[in-house]
Amino acid sequence: MNIKRFTVANPINCHAVVKDIKSEDITKLTKVEIEDKSLIVKLEDEDIVYGLGENVRGINKRGWIFESYCSDDPNHAQDKRSLYGAHNFILISGKEKLGIYIDCPSKVVFDIGYTNLGELKITVVDGEYNLYIINGDTESEITKSFRKLIGQSYVPPKWAFGYQQSRWSYKDEDEVRELAKNFRDKEIPIDCIYLDIDYMERFKNFTLNKESFPNFDKLVVDMKKDGIKLIPIIDAGCKIEKGYEIYEDGIEKGHYCKDEDGKPFVAAVWPGQVHFPDFLDKDARLWFGSKYKFLVDKGIEGFWNDMNEPAIFYSEQGLKKAFDKIEEYKGKNLDIYSFFELKDTILGLSNSNNDYNSFYHNVDGKKVKHNDIHNLYGYNMTKSAAEGLEKIDENKRFLLFSRASAIGAHRYGGIWTGDNTSLWEHLEMNVKMMPNLNMCGYMYTGADTGGFGGNCTPDLLTRWMQWSIFTPLLRNHSAMGTRNQEPFAYDLGTEKSVKNLIDLRYALVPYIYSEFMKATLNDDMMFEPLGFKYSDSTSRTVEDQLLMGDSLMLAPIYKQNSKGRYVYLPEEMLMVKIKNIDEMEFEVMPKGHHYFEANLDEFAIFIKKDKMLPLGKTAKSVESLNNEKLKVIAFVNEKANYNLYDDDGVSKNYKTLKADNLSIEIKYVGNDLKVETVVEGKTTIKELEITAILSNGEVRKINHKI
Amino acid sequence: MNIKRFTVANPINCHAVVKDIKSEDITKLTKVEIEDKSLIVKLEDEDIVYGLGENVRGINKRGWIFESYCSDDPNHAQDKRSLYGAHNFILISGKEKLGIYIDCPSKVVFDIGYTNLGELKITVVDGEYNLYIINGDTESEITKSFRKLIGQSYVPPKWAFGYQQSRWSYKDEDEVRELAKNFRDKEIPIDCIYLDIDYMERFKNFTLNKESFPNFDKLVVDMKKDGIKLIPIIDAGCKIEKGYEIYEDGIEKGHYCKDEDGKPFVAAVWPGQVHFPDFLDKDARLWFGSKYKFLVDKGIEGFWNDMNEPAIFYSEQGLKKAFDKIEEYKGKNLDIYSFFELKDTILGLSNSNNDYNSFYHNVDGKKVKHNDIHNLYGYNMTKSAAEGLEKIDENKRFLLFSRASAIGAHRYGGIWTGDNTSLWEHLEMNVKMMPNLNMCGYMYTGADTGGFGGNCTPDLLTRWMQWSIFTPLLRNHSAMGTRNQEPFAYDLGTEKSVKNLIDLRYALVPYIYSEFMKATLNDDMMFEPLGFKYSDSTSRTVEDQLLMGDSLMLAPIYKQNSKGRYVYLPEEMLMVKIKNIDEMEFEVMPKGHHYFEANLDEFAIFIKKDKMLPLGKTAKSVESLNNEKLKVIAFVNEKANYNLYDDDGVSKNYKTLKADNLSIEIKYVGNDLKVETVVEGKTTIKELEITAILSNGEVRKINHKI
Repeated sequence: MNIKRFTVANPINCHAVVKDIKSEDITKLTKVEIEDKSLIVKLEDEDIVYGLGENVRGINKRGWIFESYCSDDPNHAQDKRSLYGAHNFILISGKEKLGIYIDCPSKVVFDIGYTNLGELKITVVDGEYNLYIINGDTESEITKSFRKLIGQSYVPPKWAFGYQQSRWSYKDEDEVRELAKNFRDKEIPIDCIYLDIDYMERFKNFTLNKESFPNFDKLVVDMKKDGIKLIPIIDAGCKIEKGYEIYEDGIEKGHYCKDEDGKPFVAAVWPGQVHFPDFLDKDARLWFGSKYKFLVDKGIEGFWNDMNEPAIFYSEQGLKKAFDKIEEYKGKNLDIYSFFELKDTILGLSNSNNDYNSFYHNVDGKKVKHNDIHNLYGYNMTKSAAEGLEKIDENKRFLLFSRASAIGAHRYGGIWTGDNTSLWEHLEMNVKMMPNLNMCGYMYTGADTGGFGGNCTPDLLTRWMQWSIFTPLLRNHSAMGTRNQEPFAYDLGTEKSVKNLIDLRYALVPYIYSEFMKATLNDDMMFEPLGFKYSDSTSRTVEDQLLMGDSLMLAPIYKQNSKGRYVYLPEEMLMVKIKNIDEMEFEVMPKGHHYFEANLDEFAIFIKKDKMLPLGKTAKSVESLNNEKLKVIAFVNEKANYNLYDDDGVSKNYKTLKADNLSIEIKYVGNDLKVETVVEGKTTIKELEITAILSNGEVRKINHKI
Repeated sequence: MNIKRFTVANPINCHAVVKDIKSEDITKLTKVEIEDKSLIVKLEDEDIVYGLGENVRGINKRGWIFESYCSDDPNHAQDKRSLYGAHNFILISGKEKLGIYIDCPSKVVFDIGYTNLGELKITVVDGEYNLYIINGDTESEITKSFRKLIGQSYVPPKWAFGYQQSRWSYKDEDEVRELAKNFRDKEIPIDCIYLDIDYMERFKNFTLNKESFPNFDKLVVDMKKDGIKLIPIIDAGCKIEKGYEIYEDGIEKGHYCKDEDGKPFVAAVWPGQVHFPDFLDKDARLWFGSKYKFLVDKGIEGFWNDMNEPAIFYSEQGLKKAFDKIEEYKGKNLDIYSFFELKDTILGLSNSNNDYNSFYHNVDGKKVKHNDIHNLYGYNMTKSAAEGLEKIDENKRFLLFSRASAIGAHRYGGIWTGDNTSLWEHLEMNVKMMPNLNMCGYMYTGADTGGFGGNCTPDLLTRWMQWSIFTPLLRNHSAMGTRNQEPFAYDLGTEKSVKNLIDLRYALVPYIYSEFMKATLNDDMMFEPLGFKYSDSTSRTVEDQLLMGDSLMLAPIYKQNSKGRYVYLPEEMLMVKIKNIDEMEFEVMPKGHHYFEANLDEFAIFIKKDKMLPLGKTAKSVESLNNEKLKVIAFVNEKANYNLYDDDGVSKNYKTLKADNLSIEIKYVGNDLKVETVVEGKTTIKELEITAILSNGEVRKINHKI
């Protein structure tokens, strides 16, 4: 067995792990030293530490201290320690390779060479956890073992691979219809429009603002006819308001988190005072999950769960104390110390440790302090929704993703990478985050393209899109008060570039969906660091290129005013420089360091040796894709092959049925290229239009009927 | 004349310009369109926009909107618009080249392709300014014309090129002595130790905390004997306190800024309530400047002026209003809108526009609202100090630098680049800032190495030092509450690496001082973008390499966990890979793109063709340097030369006297290399130990007596 489990104290069952592994005697633990509440591993100079899913900094996490503690902190600079997710898996890769997973519901600190350059120190703050040690010969093997341990990742409907447009908020029906019309008039493909908090009646979950959305049901239907799904937001907190059904029902049934005295805990978020459903309590979880039906009945097929760290603007208690404290400062001459105390009194109101320590959950009949299970809250809200939706239709895939998460929730929904900012650095950070997210089970994920907070410039949107069109979740989202950043919010040149990119995304759907599904079903990664496949020392240090699926290496441009970038090729590859679907240039490049030029409306991808990239046509939405004829770009050295996975895209039959597979092989017969295809299941594809590029740069066109 | 001046309305004289240029008829302005309060210039795709001195983002400022408005904002991410300085010079470089200087005391907005990709729009908010249009054939020519327009930059004493250690705060005599002892015991060179706000009695300018510094005078003397200068901070605001001499004297003489009613304006900073000296009023400026004598009489030879944007924690008025407003929120159910209003009530207290609009200056007898001259405040504080110090000894150089600044202040002091953070991005930002600072007259400048706010990791300090040892101001500074970041605050390996770098800095002093002085006296830049000297399109887009002085190109490593980096060579150069003074490797590299490897304890610099780098020995402090024998690394192609400038380093004789120059020439005579030296003035150097590397990589050692 390459996975060993060690149990320390009496941890709560997080339901993160799906395999039953017997706990071993911790005194037999090797390679890892135990010191009080900490685990210590010596790091060699050449060791890389991967993992931690959604977090700041590099693919290699060395040189910083991270905390797994779901945090609503939109200002995520390099000096932050936590983002919205708590993903406790790390992988040490050096002469020895080792996976470590801390299965624990509360705060874990990962000091990865921050205090001592050569030491990894993991501290489980409350000292109760299951430790999993995963051995293997390669990074991929260890990751795969870990992924099998935590169970198969969430699979969204295929239409969720289309382009998605969001903003806080498209405020009323007219604005939504106008937006949709804009996309259709300009022939920019789109599959989803998001409804942020303003669609609700004063921010109350499972209500509708009748003034701004008087004909919500019709809107949903009309949009859907046009190939566009509306995706409403659901928040964790439920408004305290007499007469509001969710409030009253939850109170009556006792489904809200309680304070010390057993009364429903009062926090405040968007609507002011709210109660938090106790997602850790099975009954409450099922109860809340059943509420999604209100919107599903209106034709809604997807949701995003938000504010479920849970974010707390203030608690009733906390606000009262703050006002009392402020009273003391009145009329005083405040110096540096007292003034900053005053500031902190107000700033400290939100997401405060005091509050997280003053409400309780019912975990299998046991009263558990929130802070002791903090990282499971958003996880179980996702589970709540997934269970509720499964009850509505057990064989239908819904789009579902969350802001807060922990390992385990990856089986129930995806995540977006939280409230980022329109910064070039956040584009770069997203690139680096993807493989670490995949390692931790998060496959359906992506960043708010263009950035949520702050003001996006047209060049940033363009470069970001050049990257995001490869991420499963492709959503452009921005905050209230910021500049608009829809594809047509800027000049015509930008609109054209972004439209080209969205068209390309739709052409890429066959490849992206295929790679997503294969990786998800096989517990593999879709985005990999170069070091996972190439063991040379340079590949191991590359931080801004990724392998994406079976065929591609990506090297996005993420610097403003760049007219190109450096790229390292761990082996000979085919560079495909892309302006749009119809304008691509090919160049065979030898192994080694290169610089390629790319103006703002261009970028490059790389096809690996003997691999190919299938490309469909664009369409107004994913369900309108018609890929009877597929273009294939193949870089043929000896024998190129590709296996194109497909399925119905909406049912959960992928769990039980063999999928539709089209295997393509291109090989030399003498000096000629011969194409062979094998279909398993069925395929809609009737013809392949192959552009084969040989190692010497020669281009051969081959049409192949299936 | 390559400079044209146009006067719009009736601007206040900022005294930024030292040349008397007749104003021309603005209707004759070409290339620049005027639209209301804005100037508009069309940008071509290939245009680069340099300038704006101390600001965020790249060397090329395209793609963002900047504001010249001195701001105390330590959280300077890419999405900020202003830092501490207001440097209104920009240089458009494309097929056409154009310098634009907005001589204006208040806010100016530079929209550089932010709203429209292809348009530069400069808006002078109050509409009164002098516009200078500078023409020239090259970027260097335009910059030099501009620098001549604004007058020669400040020159510090030579010892200010030594290593400087700071922290908020080394709190008492014992801590300062212990710190100095640590440096001396570990043989790490040091020239300055900084005293942050805690050396004062409750943050009162020109007082001493008698409890923590009971023998201040002796401390200064003892330290100086050991080659270490103490550099105290001076803040803009003066505490309101009966019996405090500065307060009472200033009130009596009417030297403080007034509110609407003519009473001294009450703001609050470190000590609580303060008044701001009216630096715009000549009498007040001279009065405040004369106060520096208190510390100079104790042996102090350098100062840093801080909080002079001016930073305002709150004003008496503002705090009262905030408390009133908070009262209204009490007992209410605060929703998103009211809660964020409450937060903003407190957060908005600091550096508020309301406050900047409610106090007044006396400018040549005229009552002028602060906001109308906001950017001149820090500038005139620096001028105040410089004038005061000049009165004490008109021929002595003092170390003097400031946080806030505007063009004009560069003649009186240097600046540090403000309260940055321990982020890799802030190291990168500092690299990009240097040429833009030089353009705007700021020659004696540098960043808080290791970062002021946040926690510095050992690898960040090491990489940052590899860069900072080339900046004139080399200071390690960190904030209260952050991790210590002195060279010996980490592991022994880090200590050794940092010591090696500081030793190397002292060996570099001859070159750095020579290049600093030549650039300053000739109105040239010391740090240049590659595009200033090489016109190929790649050189023009390089953002992370700089030419430094006559001989060097720098390509610092600024990414965590990097084991090397890419570098572009615009011509054949000599790479010098450095571990320490005694361990250097040479490699001749052809023009083009390269990747070089460099572990954490290594970095590389590049010597240009036919240029050389003189290297002295290290010493405990600059005044202890003994450079009778100089090492010279020369990259000889045809004829290499270098001119080493020197002077006494303490007097202002550089203004009137010819300096000491040692010219070195190495040329071929047949197949032999011949060294010729010419001394103008005098030199302490008696021998050159030359390592000449030829284009073919051959190394020749030559000893040359002078």
